[in-house]
Order: sequence, then structure tokens, then C-alpha cells
Amino acid sequence: MERLSRAAAHRLSLYLRALAVWPADAGRVSSGRIAAACGVTDAQVRRDLAAVGSLGQRGAGYDPPELAAAIRAALGIDRRWRAVLVGVGNLARALLRYRGFRAQGFEVVGLFDADPGKVGQRVEGLEVEPADRLGRRVGELAAELAVLAVPADAAQPVADALSAAGVRGILNFAPVLLKLPPRVKMVTVDLSIQLEQLAFLVQHGDPGPEGGG
Amino acid sequence: MERLSRAAAHRLSLYLRALAVWPADAGRVSSGRIAAACGVTDAQVRRDLAAVGSLGQRGAGYDPPELAAAIRAALGIDRRWRAVLVGVGNLARALLRYRGFRAQGFEVVGLFDADPGKVGQRVEGLEVEPADRLGRRVGELAAELAVLAVPADAAQPVADALSAAGVRGILNFAPVLLKLPPRVKMVTVDLSIQLEQLAFLVQHGDPGPEGGG
Repeated sequence: MERLSRAAAHRLSLYLRALAVWPADAGRVSSGRIAAACGVTDAQVRRDLAAVGSLGQRGAGYDPPELAAAIRAALGIDRRWRAVLVGVGNLARALLRYRGFRAQGFEVVGLFDADPGKVGQRVEGLEVEPADRLGRRVGELAAELAVLAVPADAAQPVADALSAAGVRGILNFAPVLLKLPPRVKMVTVDLSIQLEQLAFLVQHGDPGPEGGG
Repeated sequence: MERLSRAAAHRLSLYLRALAVWPADAGRVSSGRIAAACGVTDAQVRRDLAAVGSLGQRGAGYDPPELAAAIRAALGIDRRWRAVLVGVGNLARALLRYRGFRAQGFEVVGLFDADPGKVGQRVEGLEVEPADRLGRRVGELAAELAVLAVPADAAQPVADALSAAGVRGILNFAPVLLKLPPRVKMVTVDLSIQLEQLAFLVQHGDPGPEGGG
């Protein structure tokens, strides 16, 4: 399998969303239908799917469950991922109720907060633990990922603690650029960046599809 | 000014974040320092900044406030944007407390929810209004943008109502693909896609910088 670019991986995530709403009785799906649903070109969809080993059949399209499985394998989500969540505020509560996480194989197995007033509370079935226990608990919980939902000024020390504890990836909601060792991967969800992108699109017109490079 | 790609616009947002933490007494900033902070190549930074009309000076770098102003103008955030927020749950409360929005020029001017139990509540200084009033209120409030934080099954009808009411852009947190007229732009923050991207990076190693294409 050829090496996927990060933009290609993002498009594959979008294709999965389109396949998820494809009616079970609708039979095979064409690259054109996926392209239209995701706002990318037909040729781009065919290239991306060929890269994950799904060639489809000329005129017959792709088998949706088979295609979804190939995409999930390419993205590395054909397995379960255990994650700890640090910083139990409104954002964390929203994330814990968000059914998309578990459906995609992500399971929050531990909650941590530095605020003694929050420690011991039960949130969505989990008890909040003190943040200073992360070093020990990440290993005990066999968590590979972490969701960082702490205020900006606490983000770097917590990220350092998570890295030292052995997490392999951090989903960061703090609006700061974090320094991490290369072995720890990070995706930052900076909500003000998303709003800036929206302002850019509204101001200038859409220079390309949402999933595009 | 040449037409910016969406990926370039995203990188410019990252450069702004790096400039925001550049010490006021540190003088000019080099493309190399910005590149290192954002995880992109020096050459990429220089190309992106040339595209927004900032050429820097060989060996002397860029004037940080001047550069930030040029980037803000290129992104269309050298002005204020008024937004309504629909769906007043945990996510909305987290967003309203998120200081990054206002700092970047985005102001939430109205809250709406379909739940009669929430209508009339005051949240962060705003009173929640019934969602069925959006058609009239978007215009009265002079809101150009909307933040959509409703459950997945309510997202399309609310997006339709917002489009009909005249919003120009929607920041969508619902994990669904929405159909909108071309004049309405959308940025989707699908948190499970972000987690998928993280799983992909952890599984396969980082194929490129976070801000890259």
C-alpha cells in the first residue's frame, strides 16, 4: 500500500462518513456518488481508493461494506483505541456524550483533573482522578491516546506528563502550539482556527473542497 | 494577491498562533523560526508569506505586528464577525467560554435551542431564544455566521433554516455531511474524524507536518 498523505487520510475519513449513510439496500456505490457527497472530484476519489487497495469495477462501483473495511484498515481504525481524557470541563462532558467516538472504536477509559473539587466526581460512569496520577495510571489503563481539554496555560505541562507516561497520540483542544517528542503524535483541534477558515471561505469563496489539499 | 488554497489558509492560521506568542521585545522574526514552531518547511513559510504580500528582508526577517496584520487581512479576520449559536448543550457552553473566539474577532450575538426547557435561560450573558425564530432573528442580529452544535438528526433542518435566513457560513459540529447552497460556506469540525487522523498518525507515523497539504 502506498504511503498516504495526511490530506488523503482526511479525505478517507470523509468517504467513510458518506458510506455510513449509504442505504444498505442500495447496492454498490460509484466513485461519483462518493465524490459528490464529499465535495471532491471523481478522479480524486478513484485515486484515493486505489491507494488503499480498492479498485472497484468499471461501471459497477464499489461494494460499500468492503470499501468501508478497506478504508478503516488504511486509517488504522479497524481496532479499538483506549484514551484518557484530561481536563473535565464543559468540553470534556460534551466529548464524553459524543456517540461518534465509541462508534469509531475510541473508548475513554480514564478521566483526570487537577482541580481537587472535581476529583472523585462521577462523569458518564467514570470517576475523575487527580491529574498528578497520570504517570502511573496511563500504563495501568493501557491507554495509548489522550484527549487534552485543559486551559491553554496548563496544556504543555500536562502534555509533558502524558508523553512521559507513554501515550502515543494526543488530541489537543488547547489553543496553543505544544512541543512533543517525535514519537508522540498530535492532532490539534483549534476552534478559532476553524472559525478563521470559515471566515476565509465566506470572504473569498471556496478555493476547493473541504477535504481537499 | 494570488488565490490562496485552503491548505495555505490553514497554515497561515498556524503562523498567526506562532506570532501570537512571539515576545514583544524579541524584534523581527525569521521564516525559519515560524517554520520550526509550526512544523512546516522554511521554504513553505516563505512561499506562503510571499503570497500574502509579505516578503521579509534577507537576513532581517519579518516585523511581527506587520506580518500578523498581513495574515489577518489575507484570511479575512481583520474585521469582526457576528455569529449565532444553535444548540445550547455542553459543547455550546464550552465554546461560549472559549476566549479564543472573541480574541480573533468572532462574537456570538444570539443563542437558539429547540428545547422549550432551555429557552429563556441566560448563558454567558445571552438569553436562549426558540430555534423557530432563527428565520427572523438572524437578520435582526446582523449575524453572518452560525455555529451549529445540535444533535446529528437535527443538523440538516437547522442548516436549511440558517441558509434561508441568510447566514453566509456555518461552523458545523454535527457528525453528518450537510447539503447547503453554494453561497453558504461550511467548515465541519467532526471530532471523530480528528480522532481518526490521530489514530492514523500513531499507526503509520507522521507523513507530514500538521499544517501541510
